[in-house]
Amino acid sequence: MDPRTGLPVVGMVGGGQLARMTHQAAIALGQSLRVLALTPDDGAALVAADVRYGDHTDLAALRAFAKDCDVVTFDHEHVPGEHIRALAAEGVTLYPAADPLRYAQDKRAMRERLSEMGAPVPRWRPVASPDDVTAFGAEVGWPVVLKAARGGYDGRGVWLIGTGAEAVERAAALLAGGAELIVEERVALRRELAVQVARSPFGQVAAYPVVETVQRDGICVEVLAPAPALPEELAVAAQQLAIDLATGLDVVGLLAVELFDTPAGLVVNELAMRPHNSGHWTIEGARTSQFEQHLRAVLDYPMGSTALTAPVTVMANVLGGEPGGMAIDERLHHLFAAEPGAKVHLYGKQVRPGRKIGHVTVLGDDLDEVRARAARAARWLRHGDQ
Amino acid sequence: MDPRTGLPVVGMVGGGQLARMTHQAAIALGQSLRVLALTPDDGAALVAADVRYGDHTDLAALRAFAKDCDVVTFDHEHVPGEHIRALAAEGVTLYPAADPLRYAQDKRAMRERLSEMGAPVPRWRPVASPDDVTAFGAEVGWPVVLKAARGGYDGRGVWLIGTGAEAVERAAALLAGGAELIVEERVALRRELAVQVARSPFGQVAAYPVVETVQRDGICVEVLAPAPALPEELAVAAQQLAIDLATGLDVVGLLAVELFDTPAGLVVNELAMRPHNSGHWTIEGARTSQFEQHLRAVLDYPMGSTALTAPVTVMANVLGGEPGGMAIDERLHHLFAAEPGAKVHLYGKQVRPGRKIGHVTVLGDDLDEVRARAARAARWLRHGDQ
Repeated sequence: MDPRTGLPVVGMVGGGQLARMTHQAAIALGQSLRVLALTPDDGAALVAADVRYGDHTDLAALRAFAKDCDVVTFDHEHVPGEHIRALAAEGVTLYPAADPLRYAQDKRAMRERLSEMGAPVPRWRPVASPDDVTAFGAEVGWPVVLKAARGGYDGRGVWLIGTGAEAVERAAALLAGGAELIVEERVALRRELAVQVARSPFGQVAAYPVVETVQRDGICVEVLAPAPALPEELAVAAQQLAIDLATGLDVVGLLAVELFDTPAGLVVNELAMRPHNSGHWTIEGARTSQFEQHLRAVLDYPMGSTALTAPVTVMANVLGGEPGGMAIDERLHHLFAAEPGAKVHLYGKQVRPGRKIGHVTVLGDDLDEVRARAARAARWLRHGDQ
Repeated sequence: MDPRTGLPVVGMVGGGQLARMTHQAAIALGQSLRVLALTPDDGAALVAADVRYGDHTDLAALRAFAKDCDVVTFDHEHVPGEHIRALAAEGVTLYPAADPLRYAQDKRAMRERLSEMGAPVPRWRPVASPDDVTAFGAEVGWPVVLKAARGGYDGRGVWLIGTGAEAVERAAALLAGGAELIVEERVALRRELAVQVARSPFGQVAAYPVVETVQRDGICVEVLAPAPALPEELAVAAQQLAIDLATGLDVVGLLAVELFDTPAGLVVNELAMRPHNSGHWTIEGARTSQFEQHLRAVLDYPMGSTALTAPVTVMANVLGGEPGGMAIDERLHHLFAAEPGAKVHLYGKQVRPGRKIGHVTVLGDDLDEVRARAARAARWLRHGDQ
């Protein structure tokens, strides 16, 4: 407990934009998020009052950080499970715990567990040798999707493999490099969806409306909330699936379930157990943001309302453009002049090509109009061109 | 400029809840508010990354703080005008400047200036001796309102004087204590209103919808947005008045105009030149919060949309109750269980009877229902009773 406020202390391991935005939400709850950052330039370290430094793979650093935290949670999935278990054994409260978090860290473990639970997943196979990939491709048809079990994000660690020859070459190289791989069918999808749910230790689960996520080159560029033209029964099924997964896996905190919308029904793509890019729209678009909700969950407070605040919310990621050109400060001027209603979230990052440096959110009544405004706002911040 | 982000540095003098909530808004704009606090327990010092310590009446401390700030602004009106002038002469950019700020610091100067500008004010008179009060009371009728020209807030520095004898006694004591006084007629008001406007150095002014403020014992307990049943022409007149005052006084940043709604029309009560309690509803109730708007103004960014996000928003202040009883953490549990849609803002303050320790905001469609929910939520946080 923080003696200055009489409130429990929440520590978050990792100092990226998720911790940055969680701190922002924490302020309203009377909190000040304690952050374990790598460097003073981390997005959250730039804005939080209570920042400690250390590597998230260093057990001693984690232990020192967790001391005097009432609860520890995570900005990313890169804390080794054995460290989480070790701290839990020493009496530290960590959410999510190591057991559920494993299914967000290891795609093979996730596919196995979800298959056991009867959740819809693509046909898949573990890959011990290149032959496993060619056999799988011959069975389900080419192309297939080769995935590293660990460490991938934003399209990294995922390879679309068109032929048996390509499969042999790529899998051999990756296996030789020590990667653990799985192979999956390429799902014939209509679009990608996502659902956020938050679950408290008490077991209360709150589900957000289902959203559509639009990817380009494996990176989410846009989120449409709620997912346009989604039949009610599919929306309810997606929310129920996410609630069942949160409960079945004993997740505490946010769970983001990324889904493929296919002619044969919903299929689970990925899981994330933290506030997630697909939920940034909730800052303005839902009565309770995913960041506040995550804090409420790990504090075991009752969940906040997930009601929409507008008929349509569109979140567009701002990716760094080429170096040079208009300064970010000047871009903000032009964007605000063009779109007084656009809500900007910058992460305090240096601009690098393709790097997510922020996002913008636009709310309104008409999807096409709101989407065009959000896309234009994001382009303004990237390039300053229309 | 902050070399880590490429963005200008905003410094705020004063570390209270207004700086705390301004920092929260600053995070989205890629900023990290630099705060000049008195103690590490100040509400903003608990949450901001870049906190300096010093007294706002100490010119050397202000000068050290302003060094390397691109713009300096204020959490309160207590910085001496001569210090602001001295720093401005040294090249520091301060908003609002000393000239306009004087009219938020000195009620006599404000009344004089507004009278000159033709703005509607109560009948008033400067008080050089107790006889001035009795003469004024005989002229306009008793009771009259005696006010300290400087330093009053939340009902302090204001005395309702019923008789000539009381006037002589009170005014004599105050004048002997060195207070500068004015006396005003007691306005026959129907209710109190407030308007927030923000003005940029460029001269753009954005006006928020007019709200009703509900006072108890001289303290604002509730804000209803928009002001219920306010005729359109009166709403426009109030906004135009605030825009004219912001422009005429050359205010940069937020200007809150507190108004009396009287049978004879609108009358200006007080001015504040900073984010103000009567604008806290904008965090959720308007597309751009007053805190973001104040930052945009002092950064000379184009103003954000002031559109309402819901038909009705009610903000209720949370005042500290008697010591003892249920801990704030437990109160939060009960409140969140009872009102999943209530938005809580705690200021990180120790609870003291009557002290503003936070506020709650509820949004909806029906005024009576939303108002009852907000009042109940505020009471939960105060006492834990219904």
